[in-house]
Amino acid sequence: MRFFSDNAAAACPQVIDAILAANRLDTAYDGDALSQSLDGRLSELFETEVAALWVPSGTAANCLALAALCPPHGAVVCHADAHIQNDEGGAPEFYTHGAKLLLVEGPGAKLTPDTLTERLDRVAAGVHWVQPHAVSITNATEYGLVYTPAEVAEIGAITRARGLGLHMDGARFANAVAHLGCTPAEVTWKAGVDALSFGFIKNGGMSAEALVFFKPELAAATKYRRKRAGLLASKGRFLAAQILAMVEEDLWLANARAANAGAALLARAAGDRLVHPVEANEVFLRATPAEAASLRALGFDFYDWAPGEIRLVTSWDQTEEQIRPLAEAIAAL
Amino acid sequence: MRFFSDNAAAACPQVIDAILAANRLDTAYDGDALSQSLDGRLSELFETEVAALWVPSGTAANCLALAALCPPHGAVVCHADAHIQNDEGGAPEFYTHGAKLLLVEGPGAKLTPDTLTERLDRVAAGVHWVQPHAVSITNATEYGLVYTPAEVAEIGAITRARGLGLHMDGARFANAVAHLGCTPAEVTWKAGVDALSFGFIKNGGMSAEALVFFKPELAAATKYRRKRAGLLASKGRFLAAQILAMVEEDLWLANARAANAGAALLARAAGDRLVHPVEANEVFLRATPAEAASLRALGFDFYDWAPGEIRLVTSWDQTEEQIRPLAEAIAAL
Amino acid sequence: MRFFSDNAAAACPQVIDAILAANRLDTAYDGDALSQSLDGRLSELFETEVAALWVPSGTAANCLALAALCPPHGAVVCHADAHIQNDEGGAPEFYTHGAKLLLVEGPGAKLTPDTLTERLDRVAAGVHWVQPHAVSITNATEYGLVYTPAEVAEIGAITRARGLGLHMDGARFANAVAHLGCTPAEVTWKAGVDALSFGFIKNGGMSAEALVFFKPELAAATKYRRKRAGLLASKGRFLAAQILAMVEEDLWLANARAANAGAALLARAAGDRLVHPVEANEVFLRATPAEAASLRALGFDFYDWAPGEIRLVTSWDQTEEQIRPLAEAIAAL
Amino acid sequence: MRFFSDNAAAACPQVIDAILAANRLDTAYDGDALSQSLDGRLSELFETEVAALWVPSGTAANCLALAALCPPHGAVVCHADAHIQNDEGGAPEFYTHGAKLLLVEGPGAKLTPDTLTERLDRVAAGVHWVQPHAVSITNATEYGLVYTPAEVAEIGAITRARGLGLHMDGARFANAVAHLGCTPAEVTWKAGVDALSFGFIKNGGMSAEALVFFKPELAAATKYRRKRAGLLASKGRFLAAQILAMVEEDLWLANARAANAGAALLARAAGDRLVHPVEANEVFLRATPAEAASLRALGFDFYDWAPGEIRLVTSWDQTEEQIRPLAEAIAAL
Repeated sequence: MRFFSDNAAAACPQVIDAILAANRLDTAYDGDALSQSLDGRLSELFETEVAALWVPSGTAANCLALAALCPPHGAVVCHADAHIQNDEGGAPEFYTHGAKLLLVEGPGAKLTPDTLTERLDRVAAGVHWVQPHAVSITNATEYGLVYTPAEVAEIGAITRARGLGLHMDGARFANAVAHLGCTPAEVTWKAGVDALSFGFIKNGGMSAEALVFFKPELAAATKYRRKRAGLLASKGRFLAAQILAMVEEDLWLANARAANAGAALLARAAGDRLVHPVEANEVFLRATPAEAASLRALGFDFYDWAPGEIRLVTSWDQTEEQIRPLAEAIAAL
Repeated sequence: MRFFSDNAAAACPQVIDAILAANRLDTAYDGDALSQSLDGRLSELFETEVAALWVPSGTAANCLALAALCPPHGAVVCHADAHIQNDEGGAPEFYTHGAKLLLVEGPGAKLTPDTLTERLDRVAAGVHWVQPHAVSITNATEYGLVYTPAEVAEIGAITRARGLGLHMDGARFANAVAHLGCTPAEVTWKAGVDALSFGFIKNGGMSAEALVFFKPELAAATKYRRKRAGLLASKGRFLAAQILAMVEEDLWLANARAANAGAALLARAAGDRLVHPVEANEVFLRATPAEAASLRALGFDFYDWAPGEIRLVTSWDQTEEQIRPLAEAIAAL
Repeated sequence: MRFFSDNAAAACPQVIDAILAANRLDTAYDGDALSQSLDGRLSELFETEVAALWVPSGTAANCLALAALCPPHGAVVCHADAHIQNDEGGAPEFYTHGAKLLLVEGPGAKLTPDTLTERLDRVAAGVHWVQPHAVSITNATEYGLVYTPAEVAEIGAITRARGLGLHMDGARFANAVAHLGCTPAEVTWKAGVDALSFGFIKNGGMSAEALVFFKPELAAATKYRRKRAGLLASKGRFLAAQILAMVEEDLWLANARAANAGAALLARAAGDRLVHPVEANEVFLRATPAEAASLRALGFDFYDWAPGEIRLVTSWDQTEEQIRPLAEAIAAL
Repeated sequence: MRFFSDNAAAACPQVIDAILAANRLDTAYDGDALSQSLDGRLSELFETEVAALWVPSGTAANCLALAALCPPHGAVVCHADAHIQNDEGGAPEFYTHGAKLLLVEGPGAKLTPDTLTERLDRVAAGVHWVQPHAVSITNATEYGLVYTPAEVAEIGAITRARGLGLHMDGARFANAVAHLGCTPAEVTWKAGVDALSFGFIKNGGMSAEALVFFKPELAAATKYRRKRAGLLASKGRFLAAQILAMVEEDLWLANARAANAGAALLARAAGDRLVHPVEANEVFLRATPAEAASLRALGFDFYDWAPGEIRLVTSWDQTEEQIRPLAEAIAAL
């Protein structure tokens, strides 16, 4: 059974239905009514005026956001374990035309006000040194930890005071909000976030993520960049339809709650083995190679993460009944 | 009725079915069996070993191909009316890191051996002048004309003699092959083409084009570039499935034949009004603003192309019965 | 005798003296008093507040200016014969990260209000089409023609009305001003120019050009770009010294007048052979291959420019006595 | 007295003389005999066939080298304290079109076989992770330490085994060779170096560094990149002349020995205060703010480097008599 990535999960029925319905429309690019309604629909969801663009991948969402917030000669500060630094094949550098990522260390892939401030202060003024223009945080983080609204607000206070943009990589934003129980607004723009990569694909979507600008004026140039990157789908209605289906009746939250619940089940079974608190749908736990092998022998599929450490990711389409055998196997190790 | 673009056509039932089937697989990125089978399946179709990558847009296919064939300090020669020059928002420059497009004039958006040679010869040797590294042709062209295998081979002879790469933008490759009645091999690698953007989206696909390298070694770096551009879909199986469905039992050809037949019907009705011979699924015809208005009043939707000229595009999903009213309206002008 | 390029001329004595004097200073980069005085000194010359940066080549000056005026996804409109399009090895695309040059045809490498407007109007609105953000003109042009203040102002009125930047490539700005007899201000910012590449190297300098921003706020990011391009000389005082020497007592104008006088002498001898009016220090004239050969046999060195056409360039360091033999040889053809 | 940077030192008399002599030549760009002789002259010096290009800054030399060794989607491994990472304003990212610098920690800004191997091994295979294509080391390092030929060879063995390029930033290469007493060949190509930034400006030059390729075939594309970056000086003879003067009769070594001797004098005076061994012309020593202030009060000019640490740099043009007062002041602290 699949625990290696929520990227591999199915698209959910409502998304499939929306795609089938969209096939009966005939418009090109983003000229369709679905695409045109995204701004409005997501403005409602976020309780403020936003500009929202569909894009076909989280990497594209992240990197268009960074390009909107940072010039080619600038830098983006992020955690050393950030997806944009480690797992996107250099896409941030491609989209920003070579901006630099300045890295911050710390547990759980989280920035703190202290570690962020220390890194920013280390950059001397002057043209010899690439100057920070933006900060990027991931919520939930690459280790499944969640920034609270208060934590984001502390970082947002720093970025605003220094005139920096603030991007949130929300590949698992739904899982974070489901954990927090807050509104989407509280953990984003109300806390100082300027741009959000709002992930749906891991959470029941098929091929669409939303890039949400809380400063809507950032969208104008970004639309040119989206086209210029070959990301403007000829039949954009299929992407818009997915996002609309996901936000309808808070499907995004329901799906994320299901995935989180699965992870919580595993976390309880893992006990002292946990490397990080489990706040979203990822579980990192200590397991010897022999233990990992024994789990795999039972048919569970997952990644080794570090020596003596494995990663288990639960998905929206896995029920408690399906996950319980893994929980029991972990408890029995 | 829609005649403004085949981009707006529906995805065809076989593609939809393939997508639904792919939803039952659970693999991420391009690790799935469908994606892994593309090389083999398209190698069969092209009767030679190829490397084939799915991408989400024709612009992405074109520009990854150009980046594989031309360094940042080089130039790509293409027609002044080429899609890559006019309609891709600068994507070739983005993907190639600023390579230059050197333009050739001529009727029907076609390069000829003479116009190509003249343009190439005009570039002096030396570092002051951006040197050509590749040539890009579109088949069918932006005006619905088709290069024959012999015509491509003449261009291919020039590019090979000079050590240049040859790219074919095949957004409507199916329409070209349907018109020619040749094999896909004959009008591509056998004629000197190194890379083909093999379009499916206009022809019944939903969101996948294939980038086909006839020099398979070009694919290795391109896979890094695809990831780096945010084009590596998390759930790539959905893209691979579409391409496989389209090549199954030559669905791509059947769909293209249908679209071409519709255009031929319009062409016969248009008679002397035709601006270009109609060889694929695009019809350019002379019409006064009043005539264009009268067609629109009847419910036909299309673009003005130039003063006194309109463009009609037929699609795979339009039957003769559906198109006949427009043909009659044109004849009655 | 050299008539192939003013690039090959000597550095003039005052420049050499300034370099020797600068060698007695010990400061790094642009921290020296000479570099720091450029803004002030050139503000005096241009009778307005400017920001001025030394750079080591005209190409660097042009392309930093374009990067300041045009985003990567934008376009710069220029003449098809512009140096930035033809002779800079793709540097504009490198510095702008792939902005597109949109070309205008017309005699003498000059834009006119009509040809510029026509080109601008041809760009449709929307993300599919690269939008113009700046216009670049060359004064004196690549064919030795000079834009008058009134002509520049007509172009400047268009760029201002449309919110476009206006750059002037002034590799031979001195020759233009010497011809016009106007103030430097009249043909630049007073006519709508935002950034000027102020050339000195062809006119008696050794290795320094000035990039002059009439919107001084454009300099801040440009200083980062200059460093990022490896153009910030460790011993910048040597570049600043050259520029200061050239503007001292209007040496730049005196040198340009000398070069222009030499070209005028040749122009009078050439009579009907002239391809363009001679307004600066370049002379294009019709000559058969045999005639060109006969001039070369007399020891005159120059470039063939086109079939049946040669180019002669005079320099600040050539006296009438030195040029007269060529004038006589031309007259005797 | 100046101890803040060797960048601020004078150009030496032989360089000045060479520049004055070059002013009597009249050729453009790199078409002159001086520029054309660089390959040959440096091939002699390095006892193998090299291709050598003048460039106007060390940053330009470094970044053209990196662009020759690493594609845009690749990575360069270097020390976290490397000049290319910290002090070049993002120029590596600009020239390589966004390649990533992967950083290695360790004392004295030196890579070791172990730290390098560990960093390389940490990169997983696959398109999600930017793959290393080159390694860059600095000799002498940013902390004035020198890699021996044996140390370079250990690194070269790793890069060759993995198919990576090896670049040496030799801004103070002369100081390293002067310290080692080896031949330039021994510490470069014989040890596996593919490209060397051979610095002259800090060592008595005015405005020219040499980029030396030990794989001469790398120079062809680099010449296009040099032009494209606006680095191809119109009057290149002035740059070539400086380099030729510096290698004549080993002036480069004599100058470096003088600078090293000055640093050795200071090192002996500093004793236990030294942070790093002094092997070239840089001295890092512990000094309280009060001690630093007392040295400055005596007229010595230098940078604070870190809390409680100052940096002193000696230059070719400073005699023992001139440096002795600082040595005595340090000893007296």
